[in-house]
Amino acid sequence: MSIPLVETSFLSTLGAVATDIESLLDRLQAQGRAEGEIARPDRLLEAMRFASLGGGKRVRPFLVVATAALFGVPRERALMAGAALECIHCYSLVHDDLPAMDNDDMRRGRPTAHKKFDEATAILAGDSLLTFAFDILARPETHPDPAVRIELVTALARASGIGGMAGGQMLDLAAEGRFAGGKPQQLTESEIATLQAMKTGALLQFAWLAGAILGGTTAAQRKAVEDYGRALGEAFQIADDLLDVEGDAATVGKPTGKDAAAGKATFVGVLGVARARARLAALVAAAEKALEPFGQQASLLKAAAHFVAERQT
Amino acid sequence: MSIPLVETSFLSTLGAVATDIESLLDRLQAQGRAEGEIARPDRLLEAMRFASLGGGKRVRPFLVVATAALFGVPRERALMAGAALECIHCYSLVHDDLPAMDNDDMRRGRPTAHKKFDEATAILAGDSLLTFAFDILARPETHPDPAVRIELVTALARASGIGGMAGGQMLDLAAEGRFAGGKPQQLTESEIATLQAMKTGALLQFAWLAGAILGGTTAAQRKAVEDYGRALGEAFQIADDLLDVEGDAATVGKPTGKDAAAGKATFVGVLGVARARARLAALVAAAEKALEPFGQQASLLKAAAHFVAERQT
Repeated sequence: MSIPLVETSFLSTLGAVATDIESLLDRLQAQGRAEGEIARPDRLLEAMRFASLGGGKRVRPFLVVATAALFGVPRERALMAGAALECIHCYSLVHDDLPAMDNDDMRRGRPTAHKKFDEATAILAGDSLLTFAFDILARPETHPDPAVRIELVTALARASGIGGMAGGQMLDLAAEGRFAGGKPQQLTESEIATLQAMKTGALLQFAWLAGAILGGTTAAQRKAVEDYGRALGEAFQIADDLLDVEGDAATVGKPTGKDAAAGKATFVGVLGVARARARLAALVAAAEKALEPFGQQASLLKAAAHFVAERQT
Repeated sequence: MSIPLVETSFLSTLGAVATDIESLLDRLQAQGRAEGEIARPDRLLEAMRFASLGGGKRVRPFLVVATAALFGVPRERALMAGAALECIHCYSLVHDDLPAMDNDDMRRGRPTAHKKFDEATAILAGDSLLTFAFDILARPETHPDPAVRIELVTALARASGIGGMAGGQMLDLAAEGRFAGGKPQQLTESEIATLQAMKTGALLQFAWLAGAILGGTTAAQRKAVEDYGRALGEAFQIADDLLDVEGDAATVGKPTGKDAAAGKATFVGVLGVARARARLAALVAAAEKALEPFGQQASLLKAAAHFVAERQT
């Protein structure tokens, strides 16, 4: 079976972004120190690098780059915003894997940060990656106009803090009844939608928003990108849940079936596999439709929607 | 014994800043949500508020306000920067207190966040406060000029990340030999100076720097403020170490004697109490001298130096 041309182009672009993000994060997290820093202690730098280099598909940075390209943003700027976003994503994995959170030993086929180092180092490495994300966004290389950079800072803070990702993790823990005296809750479909929009969707939404902010877009363009993003964000989470139910641990790179075992609130749990698959297809169609105003230029983002929905890892 | 006039003025200003910071952090961490946030989950908001309200002398925000006042900065702007700095300080206490870090049950006479809530909630509350600090700095209320706000973001990220506070915590854990197979290290005086400049000094240095950035100061003024800050930062840490050795647990609000028991690297441990006291006095004198160019206007900051050196809690 031949691979369609747009998919080939998508995969090679995804790979190219991953390569560039790897080398950018490697350079930004070099030994030595930036102006205003006192020193970069070896062990902490090693743990940050372990948590952020050498793995991952870099889907989020790809989405920044692909959206930014729609608006003619220089690739180097999109990569900086993508690197900042990836630091947030990686910090969240490190803290999520901690014994007090999901207690995972393996991640992407490697030991998790607290297994490779120790818990205290993992906590500090997560904190440092989170902090570093804002350092990256604030640099002139991200955009020459400080007003654009500060808009990115606000958007990333809101996407990743209490009103976004961290808040979503809190809702997730509550749904599992993980507090003293707490019991697993049966969430409604709308509660699950809020939980997942925060836990997973908000960071993805930042990817598209960052492309639009860097590009200085019109309100209509931003609306189209946001509609695409909202649909794809939910699709991403459903695909993730389906992988946990149906995926193979060796391919996925971490144990599967954990969500059900932990009583996690997922769409798949509420809807069942067949209806979740149907919803996934509808979301991909909605994402494609939102991109219509951009015509042929958006083919990469359309391919991304299919990739997200159909990925096996 | 009568209290000198400047000290009265200092204490009332310190109190006034604490009141204003309390009400600002209360307002910023209200229910509801900011633009771009999806929701603020109750439990996480409650934990953030527990960790950042109702306690603390707010010394760091005071130093922002006092330095900013030297340069005619409107008080409301200095309070915003001070509130951001306090969020970083409070997050660091929450994460520091975790079982995998210092394992403290009490803080300011109250249970620590993970004791009051649970470990997972404490981790997320710390992450959220850290993220929120950058949200605060990025708001137009902090300064109308985005270039000033972005300079604050860079300065705070460098002061609190791997090259500042988080890096200092890493060095501190290493010095205690807290890793698998690690032994407590005998640090040299210069290694202790680096450790403490990062762990405690960097955030304090941000306080003075923020005042200078908000004020758009000349290089000479900024240098004077930095010299003051460097001396006072070290003084602050020595005073803290002396309190741990000599302080009374009920007054300090947490158990004392923990540093020595944990084999912590401190100046007092290396120099002994008498020489540490002499160094503290010399640092206060150096801090006062650095402020000479500002004359009478700097009396509040001079009083702050004495307060920091002589505090009993």
